[in-house]
Amino acid sequence: MAKRKIYLENIPLSEALDKWWRRLKEAGLDKPLTGEKIVVDDSLGRVTAEAVSAKISSPFYHASAMDGYAVKFADTFGASETKPKRLKIGEKAIYMDTGDPMPEGFDAVIMIEDVNIIKGQGARGKGQDEFIEIIEPATPWQHVRTIGEDIVATELILPENHIIRPVDIGALLGGGITEIMVRRRPKVVIIPTGTEIVEPGTELKKGNIIEYNSRILSGLVSEWGGEPLRMLPVPDDYEKIKNATLQAIETGDIVVINAGASAGSEDFTASVIADIGEVFVHGINIKPGKPVILGIFDKKPIIGIPGYPVSAYLTFNIFIKPLIYKWLGRGIAPPERLKAKLSRQVASPLGQEEFLRVKLGEVGERLIATPISRGAGILMSLVRADGIVRISAQSEGLAAGSEVEVELLRQKADILNTIVCIGSHDNTLDLLANYLKKRYPMISLSSAHVGSMGGLMALKRGEAHLTGTHLLDEETGEYNIPFLRRLLTEKKIVLVNLIYREQGLLVPRGNPKGIKGFEDLKRDDVIFINRQAGSGTRLLTDKSLKELGIELREVKGYDHEEYTHMGVASAVLSGIADTGLAILSSAVALDLDFIPVAKERYDLAIPEEFYNSEMIRQLLDIIRDDEEFRSHVLALGGYDISDMGKVIYKG
Amino acid sequence: MAKRKIYLENIPLSEALDKWWRRLKEAGLDKPLTGEKIVVDDSLGRVTAEAVSAKISSPFYHASAMDGYAVKFADTFGASETKPKRLKIGEKAIYMDTGDPMPEGFDAVIMIEDVNIIKGQGARGKGQDEFIEIIEPATPWQHVRTIGEDIVATELILPENHIIRPVDIGALLGGGITEIMVRRRPKVVIIPTGTEIVEPGTELKKGNIIEYNSRILSGLVSEWGGEPLRMLPVPDDYEKIKNATLQAIETGDIVVINAGASAGSEDFTASVIADIGEVFVHGINIKPGKPVILGIFDKKPIIGIPGYPVSAYLTFNIFIKPLIYKWLGRGIAPPERLKAKLSRQVASPLGQEEFLRVKLGEVGERLIATPISRGAGILMSLVRADGIVRISAQSEGLAAGSEVEVELLRQKADILNTIVCIGSHDNTLDLLANYLKKRYPMISLSSAHVGSMGGLMALKRGEAHLTGTHLLDEETGEYNIPFLRRLLTEKKIVLVNLIYREQGLLVPRGNPKGIKGFEDLKRDDVIFINRQAGSGTRLLTDKSLKELGIELREVKGYDHEEYTHMGVASAVLSGIADTGLAILSSAVALDLDFIPVAKERYDLAIPEEFYNSEMIRQLLDIIRDDEEFRSHVLALGGYDISDMGKVIYKG
Repeated sequence: MAKRKIYLENIPLSEALDKWWRRLKEAGLDKPLTGEKIVVDDSLGRVTAEAVSAKISSPFYHASAMDGYAVKFADTFGASETKPKRLKIGEKAIYMDTGDPMPEGFDAVIMIEDVNIIKGQGARGKGQDEFIEIIEPATPWQHVRTIGEDIVATELILPENHIIRPVDIGALLGGGITEIMVRRRPKVVIIPTGTEIVEPGTELKKGNIIEYNSRILSGLVSEWGGEPLRMLPVPDDYEKIKNATLQAIETGDIVVINAGASAGSEDFTASVIADIGEVFVHGINIKPGKPVILGIFDKKPIIGIPGYPVSAYLTFNIFIKPLIYKWLGRGIAPPERLKAKLSRQVASPLGQEEFLRVKLGEVGERLIATPISRGAGILMSLVRADGIVRISAQSEGLAAGSEVEVELLRQKADILNTIVCIGSHDNTLDLLANYLKKRYPMISLSSAHVGSMGGLMALKRGEAHLTGTHLLDEETGEYNIPFLRRLLTEKKIVLVNLIYREQGLLVPRGNPKGIKGFEDLKRDDVIFINRQAGSGTRLLTDKSLKELGIELREVKGYDHEEYTHMGVASAVLSGIADTGLAILSSAVALDLDFIPVAKERYDLAIPEEFYNSEMIRQLLDIIRDDEEFRSHVLALGGYDISDMGKVIYKG
Repeated sequence: MAKRKIYLENIPLSEALDKWWRRLKEAGLDKPLTGEKIVVDDSLGRVTAEAVSAKISSPFYHASAMDGYAVKFADTFGASETKPKRLKIGEKAIYMDTGDPMPEGFDAVIMIEDVNIIKGQGARGKGQDEFIEIIEPATPWQHVRTIGEDIVATELILPENHIIRPVDIGALLGGGITEIMVRRRPKVVIIPTGTEIVEPGTELKKGNIIEYNSRILSGLVSEWGGEPLRMLPVPDDYEKIKNATLQAIETGDIVVINAGASAGSEDFTASVIADIGEVFVHGINIKPGKPVILGIFDKKPIIGIPGYPVSAYLTFNIFIKPLIYKWLGRGIAPPERLKAKLSRQVASPLGQEEFLRVKLGEVGERLIATPISRGAGILMSLVRADGIVRISAQSEGLAAGSEVEVELLRQKADILNTIVCIGSHDNTLDLLANYLKKRYPMISLSSAHVGSMGGLMALKRGEAHLTGTHLLDEETGEYNIPFLRRLLTEKKIVLVNLIYREQGLLVPRGNPKGIKGFEDLKRDDVIFINRQAGSGTRLLTDKSLKELGIELREVKGYDHEEYTHMGVASAVLSGIADTGLAILSSAVALDLDFIPVAKERYDLAIPEEFYNSEMIRQLLDIIRDDEEFRSHVLALGGYDISDMGKVIYKG
């Protein structure tokens, strides 16, 4: 084992930012980059490096603004209905198309609609246009675009630090500018490190990690207006990382090393930077994102970014985005923020600033924020997130129902067009989310999986538009309705059937442990994977065990909970457990064997106040009438759609 | 002259849109385009053409989530502080770096910080790590990233119609996806037409028009996610336009002909489209934008777009943007809208829908919308605009002070960070606007030129943060202060000097008409260009004429008004007038001769409520302390900056 030093600091983010900007300022790096000259045709989205003034006026000659005749306004004096005036075409009246230059000495245009053409005797005996007749005098410069009407030569077209838009390109060209000084794009060289890292598409071996962080960071650099340069992955070897870093410094304005920023035996990033230049921060007290290294060499910032994708994304945003913007001379607008109500309690370590990812949805008049997976390794939490809530280091967490400020990661309009579904999980919901996006691109379905009971409680609190539920009442044998009557007395609910589905025990292909049913959960060699309390599947599990007289403590793994059917299936596939209760489609998806236990009804409970809304109507249209969707559900396996979309109950 | 038919229709916009979408629907063109397969690395900003599910789980093996030792949790039973347990390294405890795959049969990781390393007797007599000692049992799968923790194979990563972001690329690659079906980029072929049209950079001759519309339209297509293809300009020749159109249809999904959409003698666009395919709309009752042609051939829309740049921009946005979005499967978010108070009255033709460009600024708590130039040829009105107010066809205009809804063209944050300056024009203000943007990229200075008096009235109505003013009181000979005392009694105003400047009569280089002073304005061969009533320069003109006993009706051109010094200079340069009163810097800018008339004080009047705001403070910092700005002002010519930034008066 290599030598190791655990020397991570743990400084607050504000202090790290102070050091970062102070150090950049000392190095003269807190100013916009110099400009480079490019052709205007290629300047869309670039930032002006200096003010741009017009070289020529637009128009640069007096031009007719209409189709009509150019005249001298003095020649038109006295024209009236009773005393029309005639002007000889070609001499006193010259035909003009719109945009034609005014002949020398002519100073007004009479519109074609306002003249009467008088035909004379043509040479070949045919009537030819000879005069125009007018019944009103012209005013000086009427219907003429005079020189500089749009742009006067020397006039400022664009200020410095302006992001060039399509109309700006038009104005520049119209003002006679064909080349322009724009800010150079900051070059950001990204070095992925790690012996285990492999390029996407490589044949995978256990232990390999697909290199995608550098792609995420490159994409961000592009979006911010920089130029990303990705190096090939460098193994965990001090000399190789050092050489790559020196090479990166040659070309880049910023060098990003990912990862090796922690303090493990193969984490060389900090020592390489310290060896080449200077490390002035190593370790920041934020979650996720702790092992960040801030360094500098030869007036170039070198930053070590953590390996977990969420940490990498967040810290890159915190340190690199403002720097690129500063270098481009762009103002950095604060992220759009919205106030929302937190749907459930969140504990957070005291002394550490946390960046909590949340889903948002507007239910009734209120915006509801629902926390999603918090692990630094859960990239899907960023894919799914609508925004981020910062929990201060002074806080131990946030209570359910508290008001939080959310920094948006998506457009506000998209967020407001989101149907919030909280409740039981079914694979059909994922499919429905996709068909909704397919048919109505502006609308999203966001589902949070808290179980049927949790879903009904969310409806009760006004935090969801609908709930997927499959609660079996032990006494009556009836699904859902008794629970609505008991729990949601104050709300009118419409219950719409989605599907009937088969629940069963999942076991690995070939059923190696020979499991036949719930009775096998007593066995010492059988490890079960459970669903969370409050889920319909958990109720079914408990009911089944009770009927067999098996005590819960006899079931190994009973305390290990997953939140979705696919989570259970994945646990069985990967050997974490030997079996678990889930729906047939999840077994089909991961190619597991399935021991049927029960067929159950899965409904959508929708408060009447939302039932007739546009968004829900479109959702129900898909459920009821979209043949492609319905046959796709059947293809998932294990579903009966005979009542799909039918109203089961209203009350 | 060629044959002409005036056959423009004049249908309402809503009817044109109905026809457009009905016709597209009939041709099956109202659906997303088919997909094309591209590599994920190149997919940033593209739109998914189908739902994407993970091929593999991420991680695809159980991996250590920490630096530490892999153990079997069963081996750790019973460990406690009083009874620590030892596990032999290499047998019962395997060292792991974060991300290393768990050895077969191992099911927990103990963090390096939580173990005590026990050294045994090494072969070479040196102490080597032999055991780990632990004081707490492990729980199953602790500190292990189990298979699928982030992404479970078959799980939906992205729905259809999703715009791919950097994090999405990471998730796709992590889920084993390296190629993806995205919507094909719609190809939009743009044909500039017109014999007079020349490419930018060409040596210009009178009558030439620089081709920039196709660049504006191309930029828009790129921003919307399409692929623009620009053809070289085609002369006004029926056959050549027809051939170009047929060639464009070969490659494009949409063909745009610009312009020739009107009904002039050289407007062939409509007949070409009608000849090749079908024209179903020609002429829409909007301002600007009337001569639009909507046509179709062989399931490809062909659209004739007006030649004036503002008309081209607006109609392209109205018809082409939603189509490209539809083809990409993107939802089109409604433009952000804000309510604002209109700062002055606007008359608008009854029966025609008008798109009025406005500047916006937040003054105090109110958003003020100020209309800007309305000509279809004034591209700078789009460059400067913050938003567009639609004036319905049923309206004859809008009253000053009425509430209007503004569709934003810029980010709301940018608009709110705008200093609104309404009043007299001085070239120094343009320079100040640029330095403000240079020093503080987030802040803008917007100036509207309505003259000193108009500016003070805007301050009075609470519609501006500051006013540039140079009003000479005839009785006292004092500048500005008597007017503040008279007009702004209810407001506390801080008056800050900007510059002293020279006013004089501008004449063409060499003074061909031998003008010596105001006395020459009586001459029959001298045409004057005036400034608008309420401007300080107009007051100075009137005072000078009065002193010389010249009557206003004796001055030819007295009624022809310009709104800025540069407007006057441009009129003199281009021969519209022989002379006009303006500041020295405008003569310098356009290389005109200058006959001095008076030196005057030009101040900024700032209500006290804004004087201490952050934005105004930053503006004053530049005026007072920015040496680069101050020397730049001097370089403009004719300015005395000895009192620049000094408070002249408070009250």
